[in-house]
Amino acid sequence: MESPESLGVGIIGLGVVGSGIVDILRDRRDYFKSVRGIDLVIKKIAVRDVSKKRSVEVAPDLLTDDPNVVIDHPDVQIVVEVMGGIDPARTYIQKTLGSGKDIVTANKALLAEHGDSLFNLASENNAGLAFEASVCGGIPIIRAITQGLPANHISSLYGILNGTTNYILTKMSDEGGDFGEILVRAQELGYAEADPTMDVDGTDAAQKLAILIRLAFGVSMPYRSILREGITSVSPVDIAFASDLGYTIKLLGIAKSGERGLEARVHPALVPKGALLANIKDEFNAIEIVGDAAGPQVYTGRGAGSLPTASAVVSDLLYQAERRIAGRPRVSRQMVDVSATDPLATDEIRTSYYCRFAVDDTPGVLAHIAEVFASHDISIARVIQDGRSETEGGSVPLIMTTHEACERAMQQAKDEIAALDVIKEPPQIIRIEILNG
Amino acid sequence: MESPESLGVGIIGLGVVGSGIVDILRDRRDYFKSVRGIDLVIKKIAVRDVSKKRSVEVAPDLLTDDPNVVIDHPDVQIVVEVMGGIDPARTYIQKTLGSGKDIVTANKALLAEHGDSLFNLASENNAGLAFEASVCGGIPIIRAITQGLPANHISSLYGILNGTTNYILTKMSDEGGDFGEILVRAQELGYAEADPTMDVDGTDAAQKLAILIRLAFGVSMPYRSILREGITSVSPVDIAFASDLGYTIKLLGIAKSGERGLEARVHPALVPKGALLANIKDEFNAIEIVGDAAGPQVYTGRGAGSLPTASAVVSDLLYQAERRIAGRPRVSRQMVDVSATDPLATDEIRTSYYCRFAVDDTPGVLAHIAEVFASHDISIARVIQDGRSETEGGSVPLIMTTHEACERAMQQAKDEIAALDVIKEPPQIIRIEILNG
Repeated sequence: MESPESLGVGIIGLGVVGSGIVDILRDRRDYFKSVRGIDLVIKKIAVRDVSKKRSVEVAPDLLTDDPNVVIDHPDVQIVVEVMGGIDPARTYIQKTLGSGKDIVTANKALLAEHGDSLFNLASENNAGLAFEASVCGGIPIIRAITQGLPANHISSLYGILNGTTNYILTKMSDEGGDFGEILVRAQELGYAEADPTMDVDGTDAAQKLAILIRLAFGVSMPYRSILREGITSVSPVDIAFASDLGYTIKLLGIAKSGERGLEARVHPALVPKGALLANIKDEFNAIEIVGDAAGPQVYTGRGAGSLPTASAVVSDLLYQAERRIAGRPRVSRQMVDVSATDPLATDEIRTSYYCRFAVDDTPGVLAHIAEVFASHDISIARVIQDGRSETEGGSVPLIMTTHEACERAMQQAKDEIAALDVIKEPPQIIRIEILNG
Repeated sequence: MESPESLGVGIIGLGVVGSGIVDILRDRRDYFKSVRGIDLVIKKIAVRDVSKKRSVEVAPDLLTDDPNVVIDHPDVQIVVEVMGGIDPARTYIQKTLGSGKDIVTANKALLAEHGDSLFNLASENNAGLAFEASVCGGIPIIRAITQGLPANHISSLYGILNGTTNYILTKMSDEGGDFGEILVRAQELGYAEADPTMDVDGTDAAQKLAILIRLAFGVSMPYRSILREGITSVSPVDIAFASDLGYTIKLLGIAKSGERGLEARVHPALVPKGALLANIKDEFNAIEIVGDAAGPQVYTGRGAGSLPTASAVVSDLLYQAERRIAGRPRVSRQMVDVSATDPLATDEIRTSYYCRFAVDDTPGVLAHIAEVFASHDISIARVIQDGRSETEGGSVPLIMTTHEACERAMQQAKDEIAALDVIKEPPQIIRIEILNG
């Protein structure tokens, strides 16, 4: 066998993910040399405080507090960015790409925000920009789409892309309790950030969805243009009624191509209990993809955490190293050759709906509401009316599901129903998604 | 952008899979050229009868009835073997590899039987031997393990690897009916072969498991050495009792590394209803892998069929083309650098068990059986005894599950219990597997 090719690796950031990468590269070094013919050697690591005690043992001369020293190091060909945040991470990534070196990053926010310019910069400099760790951590979904499913036109993608919200919804569903209580517990257990806003409002999932859309549908879609609804409005009573109707509530990232355009949205959704995505628990992530040749597929695993993320980073290091050694184009053209596209207007979406109305328990209420739906051409599928559920305010919940209807019609109907005298609270409307796997 | 590199493809076999490959290569040609920089051009196709009418349009001069013409064609660098069977497929593959050309194959039986010699031959000639289509068709499991999870030591792998048996077990579970009836229906629908022996007796799953073991655990294990039990002995009553106990019965391929060795077995197993693998329905396949860094993962999709298989073949074509263009070693060292290993002796397996005994409905029966178990250090977890289930022969079913026990002890206990006067039929013993995903 030929002797392995040696590549120098620089790392910016030595938190839990960076430490995991160092551990894995050491542990697997001989294996990568013998099986892949690649020797990945860490040349320099940038940290905030070089004197800090660390869980992973690192020779002091490997450390620097200046990321530029990592990027400029003559023996470094591939730079791992695991510092996070938009700036200055962006500056360091630009500098690395500008010098023709490869970047491996877990920085979903940065890619979702500045993907166009960064992938173009990579392409102009024939530098690599690998990002397996940016979406669904331990699940090799980027590799699966690019290397495993290139024969496929992908028609739809449904994902549980955020572990924090899936943990919260799972606990609300399995153990009861409301959003606020469980969030506190999730924070104590490390499944939720001190400031969980970006998770619970769907921003994190929308950023990941934008990256997946770029890859799977070949378009650049600003993540801010993606319909985004968080989980704070999902109440225990919705979870209970959804369950009675045979559904589980999940926060989904959805992308679907159709004749009228590409739908892209992040929102809580009722999914049938038998669907695999309904059975993805706790902090796990999952993605369902439908390809025209391979058919429906589901991938699931840990979406975050130091070792799953490090696992993804290391797979990217090998990928970029192989392309570099081979003299192949270093950035995936799939990420560069994309056109800017806005999602299908929210008004145009067609789906089914779960509706919960807090109503006066008086005769004729159901007829009133049904009339409004009928006037908007919305067909009712099921109704649950249970007078025993009376609350202190004297209202009772009226649950309805609809057949597929147009979002515009539903929003108009919702507004009209909300204005009825018999309606005591703003109506709750959650979309229903019938999955393929 | 540089102009794409052109590679000549030859195909041996133009059945449904071969036709699917031709269709996809045509449909995606421009995409592969622009995004991957690779132009895959079909140069020659070997068929049994060149005059036969075909669903896919092929220029007559592309066809030959001699596979050697495909292999020897000077413009063919990669040969797709989709004719199936051991011989003469083996001869053609050997000839292709011997001439330094790459093979892409869906031939699991051949790889399971002759993997050692074929991968070595590929290595000696620096020829590629790609086999994504040989295991779980549309699921890019080979790519996921090699490209997505290289950072991981894999500790266990559980797979629903055979679509025919999963279809049969799903229908037995969801709709009732016994094995024979449903097999006939599966044959009518094309989910089972005219001769389904290799599927129902676990051979097909064992062959796939042997290929996965080679890849995931780095050892060569003759598939005939893998413990193999089929599904013919699983009765509707077992499915019903398993369900009462909270389990679904699936045919699993299992590989687990432990201190005492590598367990490898294919048999029906009770899996908890909440596990993802329990929810894999009909002809779908699924694989659960646990990696030390990425954690537990599940992949699911269509395991067979013309287009899923063609999708896998085309992903391999691109993979081999890239390695060829790059001048990188063409065969995965993961498949070559393996050591011959036998599975852990069946006697040494430790697992839990479901047991069904047909017993006389007389006092003391339970005590008798419990005594035998106790004498073998087998601890009983649950018992279901339901006198109402009496059959014509006068016996009633007694269901027991055990805590984890040693297989040797269980087999001895089974034999002793079978010899008791009160036992009216050979005992039914099915292993219980607690999954990770």
